[in-house]
Amino acid sequence: MSYFNEVSAVKYEGANATNPFAYKHYDATEKIGGKTMEDHLRFSVAYWHTFTENGSDPFGVGTMERPWDHLTGMDLAKARVEAAFELFEKLNVPFFCFHDVDIAPEGNTLAESNRNIDEIVSMIKDYMKTSKTKLLWNTANMFTHPRFVHGAASSNNADVYAYAAAKVKKGLEVGKELGGENYVFWGGREGYETLLNTDLKLELDNLGRFYHMALDYAKEIDFTGQFLIEPKPKEPTKHQYDFDVASGLAFLERYDLADHFKFNIEANHATLAGHTFEHELRYARVNGMLGSVDANQGDTLLGWDTDEFPTDLYSTTLAMYEILKNGGLGKGGLNFDAKVRRGSFKPDDLLYAHIAGMDSFAIGLKVAHKLIEDRVFDDFIDNRYSSFTQGIGKQIVDGKTNFHSLEEHALQLGEIENQSGRLEWLKSVINHYLLSVNVPVGMK
Amino acid sequence: MSYFNEVSAVKYEGANATNPFAYKHYDATEKIGGKTMEDHLRFSVAYWHTFTENGSDPFGVGTMERPWDHLTGMDLAKARVEAAFELFEKLNVPFFCFHDVDIAPEGNTLAESNRNIDEIVSMIKDYMKTSKTKLLWNTANMFTHPRFVHGAASSNNADVYAYAAAKVKKGLEVGKELGGENYVFWGGREGYETLLNTDLKLELDNLGRFYHMALDYAKEIDFTGQFLIEPKPKEPTKHQYDFDVASGLAFLERYDLADHFKFNIEANHATLAGHTFEHELRYARVNGMLGSVDANQGDTLLGWDTDEFPTDLYSTTLAMYEILKNGGLGKGGLNFDAKVRRGSFKPDDLLYAHIAGMDSFAIGLKVAHKLIEDRVFDDFIDNRYSSFTQGIGKQIVDGKTNFHSLEEHALQLGEIENQSGRLEWLKSVINHYLLSVNVPVGMK
Amino acid sequence: MSYFNEVSAVKYEGANATNPFAYKHYDATEKIGGKTMEDHLRFSVAYWHTFTENGSDPFGVGTMERPWDHLTGMDLAKARVEAAFELFEKLNVPFFCFHDVDIAPEGNTLAESNRNIDEIVSMIKDYMKTSKTKLLWNTANMFTHPRFVHGAASSNNADVYAYAAAKVKKGLEVGKELGGENYVFWGGREGYETLLNTDLKLELDNLGRFYHMALDYAKEIDFTGQFLIEPKPKEPTKHQYDFDVASGLAFLERYDLADHFKFNIEANHATLAGHTFEHELRYARVNGMLGSVDANQGDTLLGWDTDEFPTDLYSTTLAMYEILKNGGLGKGGLNFDAKVRRGSFKPDDLLYAHIAGMDSFAIGLKVAHKLIEDRVFDDFIDNRYSSFTQGIGKQIVDGKTNFHSLEEHALQLGEIENQSGRLEWLKSVINHYLLSVNVPVGMK
Amino acid sequence: MSYFNEVSAVKYEGANATNPFAYKHYDATEKIGGKTMEDHLRFSVAYWHTFTENGSDPFGVGTMERPWDHLTGMDLAKARVEAAFELFEKLNVPFFCFHDVDIAPEGNTLAESNRNIDEIVSMIKDYMKTSKTKLLWNTANMFTHPRFVHGAASSNNADVYAYAAAKVKKGLEVGKELGGENYVFWGGREGYETLLNTDLKLELDNLGRFYHMALDYAKEIDFTGQFLIEPKPKEPTKHQYDFDVASGLAFLERYDLADHFKFNIEANHATLAGHTFEHELRYARVNGMLGSVDANQGDTLLGWDTDEFPTDLYSTTLAMYEILKNGGLGKGGLNFDAKVRRGSFKPDDLLYAHIAGMDSFAIGLKVAHKLIEDRVFDDFIDNRYSSFTQGIGKQIVDGKTNFHSLEEHALQLGEIENQSGRLEWLKSVINHYLLSVNVPVGMK
Repeated sequence: MSYFNEVSAVKYEGANATNPFAYKHYDATEKIGGKTMEDHLRFSVAYWHTFTENGSDPFGVGTMERPWDHLTGMDLAKARVEAAFELFEKLNVPFFCFHDVDIAPEGNTLAESNRNIDEIVSMIKDYMKTSKTKLLWNTANMFTHPRFVHGAASSNNADVYAYAAAKVKKGLEVGKELGGENYVFWGGREGYETLLNTDLKLELDNLGRFYHMALDYAKEIDFTGQFLIEPKPKEPTKHQYDFDVASGLAFLERYDLADHFKFNIEANHATLAGHTFEHELRYARVNGMLGSVDANQGDTLLGWDTDEFPTDLYSTTLAMYEILKNGGLGKGGLNFDAKVRRGSFKPDDLLYAHIAGMDSFAIGLKVAHKLIEDRVFDDFIDNRYSSFTQGIGKQIVDGKTNFHSLEEHALQLGEIENQSGRLEWLKSVINHYLLSVNVPVGMK
Repeated sequence: MSYFNEVSAVKYEGANATNPFAYKHYDATEKIGGKTMEDHLRFSVAYWHTFTENGSDPFGVGTMERPWDHLTGMDLAKARVEAAFELFEKLNVPFFCFHDVDIAPEGNTLAESNRNIDEIVSMIKDYMKTSKTKLLWNTANMFTHPRFVHGAASSNNADVYAYAAAKVKKGLEVGKELGGENYVFWGGREGYETLLNTDLKLELDNLGRFYHMALDYAKEIDFTGQFLIEPKPKEPTKHQYDFDVASGLAFLERYDLADHFKFNIEANHATLAGHTFEHELRYARVNGMLGSVDANQGDTLLGWDTDEFPTDLYSTTLAMYEILKNGGLGKGGLNFDAKVRRGSFKPDDLLYAHIAGMDSFAIGLKVAHKLIEDRVFDDFIDNRYSSFTQGIGKQIVDGKTNFHSLEEHALQLGEIENQSGRLEWLKSVINHYLLSVNVPVGMK
Repeated sequence: MSYFNEVSAVKYEGANATNPFAYKHYDATEKIGGKTMEDHLRFSVAYWHTFTENGSDPFGVGTMERPWDHLTGMDLAKARVEAAFELFEKLNVPFFCFHDVDIAPEGNTLAESNRNIDEIVSMIKDYMKTSKTKLLWNTANMFTHPRFVHGAASSNNADVYAYAAAKVKKGLEVGKELGGENYVFWGGREGYETLLNTDLKLELDNLGRFYHMALDYAKEIDFTGQFLIEPKPKEPTKHQYDFDVASGLAFLERYDLADHFKFNIEANHATLAGHTFEHELRYARVNGMLGSVDANQGDTLLGWDTDEFPTDLYSTTLAMYEILKNGGLGKGGLNFDAKVRRGSFKPDDLLYAHIAGMDSFAIGLKVAHKLIEDRVFDDFIDNRYSSFTQGIGKQIVDGKTNFHSLEEHALQLGEIENQSGRLEWLKSVINHYLLSVNVPVGMK
Repeated sequence: MSYFNEVSAVKYEGANATNPFAYKHYDATEKIGGKTMEDHLRFSVAYWHTFTENGSDPFGVGTMERPWDHLTGMDLAKARVEAAFELFEKLNVPFFCFHDVDIAPEGNTLAESNRNIDEIVSMIKDYMKTSKTKLLWNTANMFTHPRFVHGAASSNNADVYAYAAAKVKKGLEVGKELGGENYVFWGGREGYETLLNTDLKLELDNLGRFYHMALDYAKEIDFTGQFLIEPKPKEPTKHQYDFDVASGLAFLERYDLADHFKFNIEANHATLAGHTFEHELRYARVNGMLGSVDANQGDTLLGWDTDEFPTDLYSTTLAMYEILKNGGLGKGGLNFDAKVRRGSFKPDDLLYAHIAGMDSFAIGLKVAHKLIEDRVFDDFIDNRYSSFTQGIGKQIVDGKTNFHSLEEHALQLGEIENQSGRLEWLKSVINHYLLSVNVPVGMK
């Protein structure tokens, strides 16, 4: 049986292709700087948005038309696995991601839930034997069920805390079983609704203990995936503890966890926190904490997580710039934590959306690569900071100055000359590179 | 004497040009759809940002290095006129805009201010005799001077109101004298700081009276320029009366002014009001109120008017789409109400910035034209709304239904079928057209 | 059977009451300025938030514990009616509000839905015979069902338009049947997701036609309730046509509807649009368009509609100030369009929340009344605008000036003197009045 | 000579005072919980907003009328010192704060600037001999002068870095000389305008080095004041490195500085970062990093730093709650980093504004103290988290669990019971305490 009859396979057909079910820019095998696009981009399909999301929003019920709609329970879960691997193959994506509740229904007890998971994991493992698609990461959903109303690892209820631990324990076992390359923590309810009823210190301490226990257990079962924290400032919670990369880093440092975690950075979470996507990537990168990416985009005129498929080429270019500068994503990948709009409810919209996202990142990769190859920003920056490569600047960088020597230097200075930052010119350069991506001309 | 020695003239050199002082996409004489780019785009230089802005911000003094810095008073004013016409010519822009206080210093009395204006206007008029550059619009600055601390035409002080009237009277005379094609009202202090001390009704009524008097005077002196209101939601005032196009329209309707005004729409003001630039343009367009455009861009992660030069090609494309659909800008134009960043303080940054802005809108024009020519969105929309061209839909549009006939229709309906809105595909189409702008391939 | 066993009746017990189920400030019979609190405040319970809301959010399922949870279909609908009138009586509220789908489940056909409605309306009518609680307004939910995915009266699908008309027709009949004092239109999906696929003009025109047909039908059946539009800028739709009061007013003016509609103003919708609650109230008031109020509050640090119960006394005071200045709410009321937080899932939280809201508005009423009685702001404003009561100012207001006479006046002015706006002092005065509300001291 | 003739001294006259120049709630000598209000609140006047601010904004020049307006240079600087100590005495405030450039004009050279500072510092020192008012903190302004256009300690220009070091060196010497209790770093330009031209890593490293040198120098000269970082997310810079307390903490941890710094937390900076004021205070408190407070308030509907005088009693109450829970402010204080509105330009507005701010914090102190004394939130929280004081919860807190024992516990759980968070009730309790602050009734 087939769930996506629109197309047998989405293939690269080039920039002039008229087939809407073709990649125009993403050619998995094309090499950019000696590495294939597939290896650079490490695309991943998000199980939840693609196979379980129904299009509901706070003011409306589901709209999505899915060929597995009529099923329920474990039958539904199995149909989704079939559909998933069909889509993975047709899109030719190397990775996928899921929460525990995406793949298997919760049972009446934790034990039953775990049995459901086991059954589906076994099915997935079978599929993976003949599929190229691997598990980028899995995670435990600790925000949907009412038991997590006041949080999970930061709940005020010790039973909930224990339950959350059991879910993560299972999650790590599943990750180990399926060869997951990472394990993600997104604390959608790890935060508070009001400080008036919250013991912030106890909650943070408990969260710290939780992560240490998770690390211990991963070590015990020899799960070697990378541990990732995914920051988000708010929504559903009024304030979420991992507000952004910086606040996540402060937490990891305070609880002696920084050596064992990196960050899974989402574009839309960045903008909700008041940052650009590239800021969060850069900040993580220079701190050695860039782990993986949730590739999507938000609407900065809307105040909630819209999780749109990424099509803004400025955003994909600047993201890929940081990723290339990071030496790639390592074990991480570009996971499409993105959903089709509620009004895009046809199955083929799932194809259109993934194609749009993959092409947009492929373009971003090409443009970013060329910007780096031509050293456009590198040369500008080297020149701009050149005062720190000699004289007093070099002494500063080498740690050989103090306030006496610096004052002495300052006292003999005349009027200080600064250079223009040339922001307007730099922005026009990006446009130039963007428009030139399809035309191989000398751009610099 | 020359103020901009960096270049003798900025010329179109094509997309592969390496000269940073060349247009890569703006070719004034190139015809797009039978009309030259110059006629489509009607670019205008903003006198204030380019010749009087010094780069100060709320936390810092001016940084701009300008060759006329050493002058003061009328000498400074005259040097700026010289510099302005030199730049207009070098950029080859067809229009410019100014506030009264941009061109001439305020005197100790209104009479003296007016004499200063007269002297500079005379000088400008002389320059215009041999220049191609015309006056897109002028306006009276009624927000900088302390007398306007509580507003101008909405001040609580009748003397201030009279003073404001005198300034607009002079402004209309200057517009008449220089052949200005429009006259703009931006009410930077027409609003309130707190409702606690504000008689909102009286202020709105007075504002209505003011505009009627302005119209009367324009008629009296036979000033035939178009009257424009420029909405902005806030800043400097906590709440500005012309919050956005819709609120401006409500005001114009309530005060019987809607037939005599259109809107001057600024991108950054749109986003500060929570709208996209294209929304404000579309809303004005379908209401027959699109007059002119302040071409810039904001930073949606910052909460104030950053007035950046426009380089976002999505924004310029969607703006030009609306403008083309409007049948052009008529008497209006694209005025660069944009300033170089405080860190871009060299004179050549003014060139880079204008080139970036003009090229970006030229690209937007080309992409938008092609999207319209290929009827990409038109066909999609025609199909999407086709139910209103026949049957019950046609009857609705023709005003031949009522709640009885509609209920009757509804009662016999089975499950209603909707089409997908295909937002993700539509966004990928824009990328496709954008990247194809330099490569003339069959795109549809 | 009883649904709210916590209390037999919530009564006024005074500011020092220790009973958490008592009003501390709301005394329905207490007269403020010659009118009872009940008549001033006209409180209304929102059926949806109180009886159908389950506490779900975009990241979690329902949490609310309700004694009617175990029921389904019409049994559930009937239990809710019983619970509703029990709560109305215990809270002693004079009004309630509902959407069609709140009171009765949708059937498989429109006809079946209407029959369900009829059955419940009949039951409600019976209850109303012995209850003091009247219908403030009802409305048709045209945003939850998938058929409304692209809008209702602004849908691209004529069938949907007809269906929406049938729902409003039924709604007006129900309003007539139950003696509703108003009928509300909130266009949650009347807007667009993207301009790329939207015929804005046709949608607005269709919306205009829809309202005219609704007016015609109301006249036909002699429904004398007031017609209200409830603005909201966005959410669920990316852009909603009735963005705020001003944009709603522009629409009503353009479509010749302004004489037949007023506005239902919601606090949280105001702040989402970038306005204060009191701004929207004031703007509607001075335009004669203040109809009714959705009493809640938002969180200005969150970007979505949180619909919190109103407890901010500044907000309730300034709202009541506008309402008192409006001469009261007329047919309108204060409807608690507010929901308990997802973590406040016990039935008694419904009581706490309504008590908190009602007490907060009662305090606001008292403070606002005293501020008006003492003419605190009135005197300040009269003095501040006194220049418009004499001389040139009076001539301006009387329409006896023109730009010649105003310029003449301006030319003879010396330096203009302005008064301080004294915002800081005015804010301290509000605090003074707020803290004095319980202590009958001479405050001025 | 006197600069503030409106009043000879602002005195506490009680809640019913009619004298606008009296404190109604702030009684410096009243003891709250065994400590005087003066010692609790440690109010400080901000030199810049009060004595140098002229009321200019990005769209208008200064409006403030100040008796020292006619002076310039060192004469002006000296008059301001006289005015300052007159105001300090009349307000009876125990502290003041300044930037170097607030007290003395910059000279043509660093040496001259330092001489100017020395002369004024000497004058201030003389005044301090007979004044009760002490120096809360001083700082170096490294954002106004054009040399700091690209930052100071994070500038791309080594000369600027050296100059900044010399300024801080001088600042520490001045702090030592005047007995300053803290030294503050606010990095208004320590951040970036665009990542495209920014070496983020080098800038952060240089900033780290700078702080270490500052600490070394303070030790060398035996300056024992507390070092404070003041976070702000943006403005004037697009992105400022000390975005909020959490990001500041991450930086301090990464650069091994966390033991030597605390935070100076400003209300308006908190809200610009998307946090409540109380969040930033709480987060700093539980991390042992709450140093001092910039007491003001913002307008959450405006996107820039409005620095309003604090009058919101919810905000002052919740702030004082955190401060009391912190055991007080230690060396820190409540500095009014607040400016009168541009329209409040009279000298007496400075009095009104400070009185409003001080009374508002006095009320906040009283309400917060009573809330703590009655253990309103403490008891609620103790009960809410009681599961962590016994059984599995206690084992978790004691570090005696692991994922095995927690899973074991979870597996034997039935449905987990959670308590309501009762947010609505908690909010009504605050209102109750607020309104009762002036009436000594049994509130619990």
